[in-house]
Amino acid sequence: MAAAVRRFLIGDPIPTAHELYHRLSKVQALAVFSSDALSSVAYATEEILLVLVLAGTGALQLSLPIALAIAALLAIVGSSYYQTIHGYPSGGGAYIVAYDNLGKAPGLIAAAALLIDYTLTVAVSITAGVAAVTSAVPSLYAFRVELCLVAIAFVAWANLRGVRESGTLFAVPTYGFVLIFLALIATGTIRVLTGSLAPALSPEMRPPMAGVQSLAWFLVLRAFASGCTALTGIEAISNGIRAFEKPEADNAGRTLIAMVVLLATMFLGITFLSRLLGVAPLEHETIVSQVGRQVFGTGPLYLALQAGTAAILILAANTSFADFPRLSSILARDRYLPRQMANLGDRLVFNNGIIGLGLLASALVVFFGGQTHRLIPLYAVGVFLAFTLSQSGMVRHWYRQRGQGWRVKAGVNGMGAVATGVVLVVIVASKLIHGAWIVIFLLPICVLFFHAIKSHYAAVADQLSLEGLSPEEWGDLASRRRHKVVVPVSGIHRGTLPALRFARSLSKDVTAVMVDVEPEVTAGVRDKWLAWGQDIPLVVLESPYRSTIGPLLDYLADLDRREPDRGLAVVVLPEFVTATRWHSLLHNQTAQLVKKILVYQRGHTAKDRVIIDVPYHLRR
Amino acid sequence: MAAAVRRFLIGDPIPTAHELYHRLSKVQALAVFSSDALSSVAYATEEILLVLVLAGTGALQLSLPIALAIAALLAIVGSSYYQTIHGYPSGGGAYIVAYDNLGKAPGLIAAAALLIDYTLTVAVSITAGVAAVTSAVPSLYAFRVELCLVAIAFVAWANLRGVRESGTLFAVPTYGFVLIFLALIATGTIRVLTGSLAPALSPEMRPPMAGVQSLAWFLVLRAFASGCTALTGIEAISNGIRAFEKPEADNAGRTLIAMVVLLATMFLGITFLSRLLGVAPLEHETIVSQVGRQVFGTGPLYLALQAGTAAILILAANTSFADFPRLSSILARDRYLPRQMANLGDRLVFNNGIIGLGLLASALVVFFGGQTHRLIPLYAVGVFLAFTLSQSGMVRHWYRQRGQGWRVKAGVNGMGAVATGVVLVVIVASKLIHGAWIVIFLLPICVLFFHAIKSHYAAVADQLSLEGLSPEEWGDLASRRRHKVVVPVSGIHRGTLPALRFARSLSKDVTAVMVDVEPEVTAGVRDKWLAWGQDIPLVVLESPYRSTIGPLLDYLADLDRREPDRGLAVVVLPEFVTATRWHSLLHNQTAQLVKKILVYQRGHTAKDRVIIDVPYHLRR
Repeated sequence: MAAAVRRFLIGDPIPTAHELYHRLSKVQALAVFSSDALSSVAYATEEILLVLVLAGTGALQLSLPIALAIAALLAIVGSSYYQTIHGYPSGGGAYIVAYDNLGKAPGLIAAAALLIDYTLTVAVSITAGVAAVTSAVPSLYAFRVELCLVAIAFVAWANLRGVRESGTLFAVPTYGFVLIFLALIATGTIRVLTGSLAPALSPEMRPPMAGVQSLAWFLVLRAFASGCTALTGIEAISNGIRAFEKPEADNAGRTLIAMVVLLATMFLGITFLSRLLGVAPLEHETIVSQVGRQVFGTGPLYLALQAGTAAILILAANTSFADFPRLSSILARDRYLPRQMANLGDRLVFNNGIIGLGLLASALVVFFGGQTHRLIPLYAVGVFLAFTLSQSGMVRHWYRQRGQGWRVKAGVNGMGAVATGVVLVVIVASKLIHGAWIVIFLLPICVLFFHAIKSHYAAVADQLSLEGLSPEEWGDLASRRRHKVVVPVSGIHRGTLPALRFARSLSKDVTAVMVDVEPEVTAGVRDKWLAWGQDIPLVVLESPYRSTIGPLLDYLADLDRREPDRGLAVVVLPEFVTATRWHSLLHNQTAQLVKKILVYQRGHTAKDRVIIDVPYHLRR
Repeated sequence: MAAAVRRFLIGDPIPTAHELYHRLSKVQALAVFSSDALSSVAYATEEILLVLVLAGTGALQLSLPIALAIAALLAIVGSSYYQTIHGYPSGGGAYIVAYDNLGKAPGLIAAAALLIDYTLTVAVSITAGVAAVTSAVPSLYAFRVELCLVAIAFVAWANLRGVRESGTLFAVPTYGFVLIFLALIATGTIRVLTGSLAPALSPEMRPPMAGVQSLAWFLVLRAFASGCTALTGIEAISNGIRAFEKPEADNAGRTLIAMVVLLATMFLGITFLSRLLGVAPLEHETIVSQVGRQVFGTGPLYLALQAGTAAILILAANTSFADFPRLSSILARDRYLPRQMANLGDRLVFNNGIIGLGLLASALVVFFGGQTHRLIPLYAVGVFLAFTLSQSGMVRHWYRQRGQGWRVKAGVNGMGAVATGVVLVVIVASKLIHGAWIVIFLLPICVLFFHAIKSHYAAVADQLSLEGLSPEEWGDLASRRRHKVVVPVSGIHRGTLPALRFARSLSKDVTAVMVDVEPEVTAGVRDKWLAWGQDIPLVVLESPYRSTIGPLLDYLADLDRREPDRGLAVVVLPEFVTATRWHSLLHNQTAQLVKKILVYQRGHTAKDRVIIDVPYHLRR
């Protein structure tokens, strides 16, 4: 039943051999890898304005210079990643680059930052996507958290089924979004310049808060830090180089340039247009929606803009659903995460990573009330930390190789590292109390967690290792040893007889043991023993406290003590298995409990012991 | 750890041999067995008034005639139970009497009625006891549900520790309550008659409801039905005859008479005095508390009255905590309830029954908001159903025996049966829509449930029975059979080697099986196999869908098909056991899962199969 439901939901299993690599053309790859980066234009401008408005409506004018500074940063980081693509043509995520070049600790910090980043990408993208929907349909605003959870569940489900990075699937929404967004900027700018659209007075602006004016410089930094979310996702291409057609690195590099140019254009365009139209942030409507309504009216073009925005944001979340499980599987293979994270599911995807990410992101959405701007302060920390570590790693990489023109390459990455490092400091300083502290707090915990897991696996490998043991020492397997066999019985019936027979087939040294809880039952068993138990002796254990398990464990411990040189102590457990799970509630689960205790019991009495289960299946 | 907490909470285990019977003197026995019956005077009068007030304050005058009718009923039922005591000197609960004399169905109905009755006794007594407390300390009224839950947990805990029916423990609160209550009635009556206490005008009476006057006759019946809760607990002595000093039946009969006289006096007295003082029901204060404040003032005597009332009500609940587990253990021994209900715990009490009752009663208290009068309509149905069945059973009993004077005895019990039967009809008719339907609905469900359990146990006994099998047929245990042994391995290490050795010691026919999930690992095992696996062949199973368990199960099923005549298929599972439970989260629990599936799997492939667990304990 459960298997049928599962198959219905996630489809038939796919054989391992089908794990193919669809190589992507540049046009397809741009669609696949840029959704995360491009989607950030849906909220980055708004995040800048949300901070600036605290310093009064006049401060909103600062959005353009801030956006220009971010665009400059984008150019630097873009060039830096262009280098990474050529330095790590097989795919250079921040974890790998930092681990390879800077060492274990920076690598693990980068890994932790990335896992946090991916989780936040899902939460931020989904809440922003839902905000695009509720801007167009305000009556849904009250249900935004529920909508977010449904959207996360949908994306997780699609990934459990195994949405491969299909260029076609991604091309329609991504290019659709780019087109409608560019059309918005062009139409808006032309209409304002030709005077057919008058800049509206900003409606319902938040009143400037008292005493905030004096902090203006700090606010500008915070606005810049918030806007830096525009850079998220820019590293995606450098992680996925192997999906490109040959020559991979060249194609990937060109695609990166196209993406950076598009991103810069769209980000500057929407910021510029929102200034031109005098738009200010509102609680129930996004900046993009406000600009869209003024430029397009409320007709089909506006709805297409909102739908396109929501779609690309969901694709952006989808990207994390590919990246998070992939990184956790790499970490699991390196033994820094539980090995279950590396299990490939029926559909060739890392199920546990997908489910884990879905749960974490859902928790974030619920905790932050489905509001993008409350999640943003947490967001950029992980991203820029990973950027900085990755770029620094690349500097080291070039220095180690010292190939042709390594100084220039190291210089470009160095500039990237310094720029992203400075931005990181700005982000942490300006958003610490607004939520960045949560990430700062989580990072070392994650790293300690990775270490603890690694050292556990090392300890296990050490204990299981055959190092120092030779096959000769281990001896001939066929040399028979006499086992001491104990069969706990509760009576003589069809459930216990097969166990006695099996025990007797193992060894001549079999003892049946019965705990005397109800004297009449014990007497009945004694009477019948000779006929059925034959040459197997029956030992009756006293149980002054009516426990069935205690006396048995004592007896076994005693046996170990009395005959320490004997072979393995073997316990044969008769167990009748009820026809349904419900029925099992009607029986004392003694055999199951004894089994558990004997397998997992440790301490001085736990000699190596073999537990044998002889099931007898009831038919009804 | 868990064991230490448990020992701290419920004390050291008590050996079975200590199960003594403390015989009780009549004075002690009256205290032990009458708390349930006597405690009902704390709420019975109030329940009458609560119904009468619906017909207007004038109708409150009817409380005295109604109380007299109930006292008459009490005399009839008392005489009837006096007969039961002599007819069943070894203890005649309604279940036993009805089962013996009327048959299975009436017996089970009586049992269901009693179990419901005991649960309601706890809920009603505890809520009424808490009402006595909150009447004296009104600020606690808002916390009445919490107080009820704490009180239930306390009584359950005391019973888990094993509060035996200690005469001394019960004597103080029971006789204290009787004394202060009789003092209240005497003082009140004298003060009113001597004119030192003027009947107060009833404060804050509920306004008569429109259109209710015409239903007055029906309301009188409902008031009578509600007042009949005064009779609950009267059967306690007939259940516990064996606890009396010899001659048991005579002493029990005399104690019953004393109890009935006391109960009638106290019930009539408080009803009379409440009329004399013109008291009407209030939401936040009980009738007894109102009467007590008027007679005693708010001094120590009043507080003693409230404390005594609360104490005897808690003792009444305690009675059910002895009766419910005892009856469920009898039902469990008769195979009508899960056998776990008959397990004697560490402290010689039926733990599961105590815990079950505590949970059920707590659920009732929460569901009905901790208000006694909302529980009352459910209460009397079970009690009077059990009365009627028990008395009818006694009629049959005397008729069957036809001993000396059997006609008189049968006549007395017959009168009891008719009286309680008529009252049962009145109760059901007048309180059906107020909650009695819940009990009417639950009774047949309980009986069906009893039957289903009984037939399951019968089916199991039938399947386990050796009927039709002789020891000769079963054969000589020592005749060796060759087992086909399969050892699933995941690698060659210290966790798997002991399993291979054990398997080889069982049989020459051992096959190691490895599922090929990671080709490199498989290749490594193949390389080392000859040295370590020696003469055991290694079979590598393909796993196109990466499942480790599927191919193994298919292989075993195939084996069963190919060699159906072979001995048992034995599966030896190497299992490494982690040092802590936390560590086990870091490993694929394949061995455990395989073990479960192999033991519980059924269907055409599930030939009898033996599962052997060879644990290897990790130390860290």
